[in-house]
Amino acid sequence: MQKIKDYVEANKDRFLDELFELLRFPSVSADPQFKEGVLNTAEFVAQKLKDAGADNVEVCPTAGYPIVYGEKIFDPSLPTVLVYGHYDVQPADPLELWDTPPFEPTVRDGKIYARGAADDKGQFYMHVKAFEYMVKNNELACNIKFMIEGEEEVGSANLGIFVRENKERLKADVIVISDTSMISLETPSLETGLRGLSYVEVEVTGPNRDLHSGVYGGAVANPATILAKMIASLHDENNHIAIPGFYDDVIELTAEERKALNEAPFDIEEYKTDLGVADVWGEKGYTTIERTGIRPTLEVNGIWGGYIGEGAKTVLPSKAFAKISMRLVPNQNSERITELFKKHFEGIAPDYIKIEVKPHHGGEPVVTPTDSIAYKAAEKALEETFNKKPVPTRGGGSIPIVALFEQELGIKTVLLGFGLDSDNLHSPNEKYGIENYLKGIETIPLFHKYYAELSK
Amino acid sequence: MQKIKDYVEANKDRFLDELFELLRFPSVSADPQFKEGVLNTAEFVAQKLKDAGADNVEVCPTAGYPIVYGEKIFDPSLPTVLVYGHYDVQPADPLELWDTPPFEPTVRDGKIYARGAADDKGQFYMHVKAFEYMVKNNELACNIKFMIEGEEEVGSANLGIFVRENKERLKADVIVISDTSMISLETPSLETGLRGLSYVEVEVTGPNRDLHSGVYGGAVANPATILAKMIASLHDENNHIAIPGFYDDVIELTAEERKALNEAPFDIEEYKTDLGVADVWGEKGYTTIERTGIRPTLEVNGIWGGYIGEGAKTVLPSKAFAKISMRLVPNQNSERITELFKKHFEGIAPDYIKIEVKPHHGGEPVVTPTDSIAYKAAEKALEETFNKKPVPTRGGGSIPIVALFEQELGIKTVLLGFGLDSDNLHSPNEKYGIENYLKGIETIPLFHKYYAELSK
Repeated sequence: MQKIKDYVEANKDRFLDELFELLRFPSVSADPQFKEGVLNTAEFVAQKLKDAGADNVEVCPTAGYPIVYGEKIFDPSLPTVLVYGHYDVQPADPLELWDTPPFEPTVRDGKIYARGAADDKGQFYMHVKAFEYMVKNNELACNIKFMIEGEEEVGSANLGIFVRENKERLKADVIVISDTSMISLETPSLETGLRGLSYVEVEVTGPNRDLHSGVYGGAVANPATILAKMIASLHDENNHIAIPGFYDDVIELTAEERKALNEAPFDIEEYKTDLGVADVWGEKGYTTIERTGIRPTLEVNGIWGGYIGEGAKTVLPSKAFAKISMRLVPNQNSERITELFKKHFEGIAPDYIKIEVKPHHGGEPVVTPTDSIAYKAAEKALEETFNKKPVPTRGGGSIPIVALFEQELGIKTVLLGFGLDSDNLHSPNEKYGIENYLKGIETIPLFHKYYAELSK
Repeated sequence: MQKIKDYVEANKDRFLDELFELLRFPSVSADPQFKEGVLNTAEFVAQKLKDAGADNVEVCPTAGYPIVYGEKIFDPSLPTVLVYGHYDVQPADPLELWDTPPFEPTVRDGKIYARGAADDKGQFYMHVKAFEYMVKNNELACNIKFMIEGEEEVGSANLGIFVRENKERLKADVIVISDTSMISLETPSLETGLRGLSYVEVEVTGPNRDLHSGVYGGAVANPATILAKMIASLHDENNHIAIPGFYDDVIELTAEERKALNEAPFDIEEYKTDLGVADVWGEKGYTTIERTGIRPTLEVNGIWGGYIGEGAKTVLPSKAFAKISMRLVPNQNSERITELFKKHFEGIAPDYIKIEVKPHHGGEPVVTPTDSIAYKAAEKALEETFNKKPVPTRGGGSIPIVALFEQELGIKTVLLGFGLDSDNLHSPNEKYGIENYLKGIETIPLFHKYYAELSK
């Protein structure tokens, strides 16, 4: 559609400037020291929704960070699209690995480098700008509602409550989320599933104080050593997860489904080169695409204990810690998996140490239907923008809210992601392609148009 | 000897005030940010040696921190005692676990709480005050030399060079070091051996950047997991160290020697209660006294990798690290053991990660003869002060310099330690008993007296 192309072309500098403004807010929800940054981001988002033409814009308080709501209901007889996104971002550390400051967006080779560029500021903001276009040009095809939260990176603890308390206000026919990636600008794709998440923190305590490793070493269990042994036992020699019952609820895909999945363009050598690894690693019997898409995983996200400063200290530490998360696939339940982990980890703990397992947030896996009107509308919109039919994929990431929406509001979600796996989400030098951003803004009005048409 | 008792009684407040002054210097040699504190400590020690009556006092520069030298040669025909000590201390972290600030000495229940109180400021300073007594009262029985270094806690890297370059100046008949512990004030003891040390830092690198654990988890080796598996494999199911050749040079003690060693008073229940552990842990087939005294050990002193901040971050880290040290027993060689570790650790590293093993400092194990004049003089001195013959013990700690002295100067060492294992060396709330401090000052002149007598 030429008209939207022209509008994007005419306004792209402003679109970028506004996104840069948004990216300058250090909205790290995991770290209390950024509280003000997070709150200011919510106010900024609310203002931008008003500017774009949204009504009833509200920064809705929660027990944690606020949720920004806004809507445009111009014809109740038309379908309603609910846009979900999040304005909070992951912590930026390790800072020293960023080539440019995480909260000072910088453009290099057509990419915007900043924390949150792709996850999710750059992606949800495409919807705000597409909305601006539709309002200004009387091209709204559907009613629209925005719900942008500030706690996605810490488990959306308060969003569930908000959704339960606002079922009427959030009524919609479909939810659109742009917080995932596509294969490439040459090969658009649509996520048809997401993994769930179970996240725990473990604390192993040995002696009641740090000890001199010369005086006590060899006679008292070292919590760092014991934690290492316990973590080592969580994967067997085939890299299957060795927690009893862990795979019980996993539904194996059919040979056809696996075949289709593995037909997505994927170059293992390119993959290894990009990551700088001599070889890949994973569960025996599955391809890399399957390992990250349809199989549950267990990863150590952080480990620490003892002296980690400069130089050498001969200490036998009192405590050692680890943050461990598990990605879950359809039919697994995060609470059940967290329980299984806790039970198992406490079970294998030797009696000469003390152990504590604290659950962090979790989320349920989902599968999005490919035969729905919403999926077909997204497919048509992407095909028109990229001149190529999008490939269905299964994403490894987790957006716990998707499952929550299904349960609480009974609404299905379409995952209209424009990021790339190489965007360094959650890593230093997170980036988002300018072209991905602008193509997204271009695609979204088409989705609304086709969704309205197909809903007739 | 009543006269020294009276002198100590009359001057004990000043002796304590001076030690407190010394303890207020934050002389952490491992951390560059304390450089000034370390240098100021050296100047202070030099001044105190002059005040006590030492001649030719000099703060000798080295490539690292200076060595403080001083002497009193009043009769070349008499034997010469070389006193070694160190004015640097271990890092104080974790700071939050100290009940009172580490560099603000505080007395509670007759104990001085401060970093370095026992290791080694409080112990080497006893020699300075005992020297003051002998000078003031014309009771010097031997010539005396002081060599107080500032890099013991980081491996005495420059002391070896200093010793080689100053063989003439350091000429002596015996070396006395008070940097170890005794069983208790009721049961004095003398160390007859020290373990050596091999200290390495390992770095495991997986992908070339931190990754999103949802997008890449399960498909790329996680360095934290791999490091855990590698560390877990370093001890077998009997807690023997599983590095090929590690025990090759260990000389097993005879049944008699082991019997004698195990006759030292030791209450396993008290030990467990003091450490707050349900059970001890260690190499199968050996008692706790043997595990910490005559057996080599391997301990993780620190481990870190990934996100270790507040809250949850779903990252697959690029790197994971560990500081690992091994305590060596007589006849093991630290360079050889470091090499064995490096070879083994690199050998077990899977090809989908990169590994680097960096050696830190090392030191050789020693055995001090119990039939020497020096040992007998120390025995008599302790017996007179404590009214009980000291028990011979084998210490688990390491003072690499002892082996170095034997090699370079051909001088044997007597380990006249007055600390207690419960002094929290290298831990928060390090302490040193006021009575241990004063009894030490009382005992040292007796050692000089008997050493001179027995040398006739």
